[in-house]
Amino acid sequence: MKLYDLEPSGNCYKVRLFASLINLDLELVAVDFVNGEHKKTPLLDINPLGQLPVLQDGPLVLRDSQAILVYLAGTYGGLAWWPAHPQGQAEIMQWLSFAGNEVEHSVCAARLVTQFGNDLDKPAALARAAVILPILDAHLAQHDWLAIGRPTIADCAVYPYVALAPEGDVDLTPYRHIAQWLKRVEVLPGYLAKP
Amino acid sequence: MKLYDLEPSGNCYKVRLFASLINLDLELVAVDFVNGEHKKTPLLDINPLGQLPVLQDGPLVLRDSQAILVYLAGTYGGLAWWPAHPQGQAEIMQWLSFAGNEVEHSVCAARLVTQFGNDLDKPAALARAAVILPILDAHLAQHDWLAIGRPTIADCAVYPYVALAPEGDVDLTPYRHIAQWLKRVEVLPGYLAKP
Repeated sequence: MKLYDLEPSGNCYKVRLFASLINLDLELVAVDFVNGEHKKTPLLDINPLGQLPVLQDGPLVLRDSQAILVYLAGTYGGLAWWPAHPQGQAEIMQWLSFAGNEVEHSVCAARLVTQFGNDLDKPAALARAAVILPILDAHLAQHDWLAIGRPTIADCAVYPYVALAPEGDVDLTPYRHIAQWLKRVEVLPGYLAKP
Repeated sequence: MKLYDLEPSGNCYKVRLFASLINLDLELVAVDFVNGEHKKTPLLDINPLGQLPVLQDGPLVLRDSQAILVYLAGTYGGLAWWPAHPQGQAEIMQWLSFAGNEVEHSVCAARLVTQFGNDLDKPAALARAAVILPILDAHLAQHDWLAIGRPTIADCAVYPYVALAPEGDVDLTPYRHIAQWLKRVEVLPGYLAKP
């Protein structure tokens, strides 16, 4: 099973982290991002959105880190990480959306500007971070894990860019419950260190 | 089962459309959006993100239209709309992410500026629309439905803001395959007209 991968990408790291937690072997294919390999044939043919990661498992090709987490958890991870009941799936899904939208356009965007010089609006990203991090912190004040009372792919989706937020000049010290949750993730068996 | 609802919202319409397709009764609770009812107690207590829609089914409260679609399809919709196998779920999930991110920040954002005066960057939204609509059109040139060869919640999630794109000054006439897909959705039994 191949993962088209970019080492510093938090979206790719979501998948590498989860694979490590379930002890699943991935063949990592490093993509030459700087030279735009993901925006050219053949990668653009398998993901027209020109984004990473992309997973290839036999004939199956999947884009989108959240979709890849659903596939890997459902296929190889057992019901612990992605349950069969729709209520649990929906509870997790709320946080997959939070990862793909709120987190992506706040702490992730700020890091892209700071670390990689992306042409995004950093003040707007920081303003969004100042809205969503207190909400996340308040949730984690009441819950050890994001959904269904145990570690799931919800945590794997939200953890990376929150843990990497200081690289975008976001100070996490006001968020005590986030800090405790980050530590809980970091002592899970099979945890893979962040990029 | 209550849906905290805003009639012109495409995200709320995703849920109303799907409920109509599966003939599920929803009690619609109109939220006074103009006066910020969604940003105040008690709605803010059940969705701290201050967004609509919110679904309440007995003790269960769910935010995020994509998560609500997963819950309703899994609980009330049968396997046709959200299959049990992870490969199908992941294939659909790619398009739920596409709805929540690419569609939201392009055609949806342009409509929010044009119709509701939101303070968003409309030229940037239109530029993103010009990138993602050809990708969607190319996919629909090869597929009648977004995922797994039949109508699913993927179509319910992507259809609303694409169908409403002209309200944000996005011209859909160049996208022949999108137009045909919109028509396929619109003749599904139980289809609910767009806001």
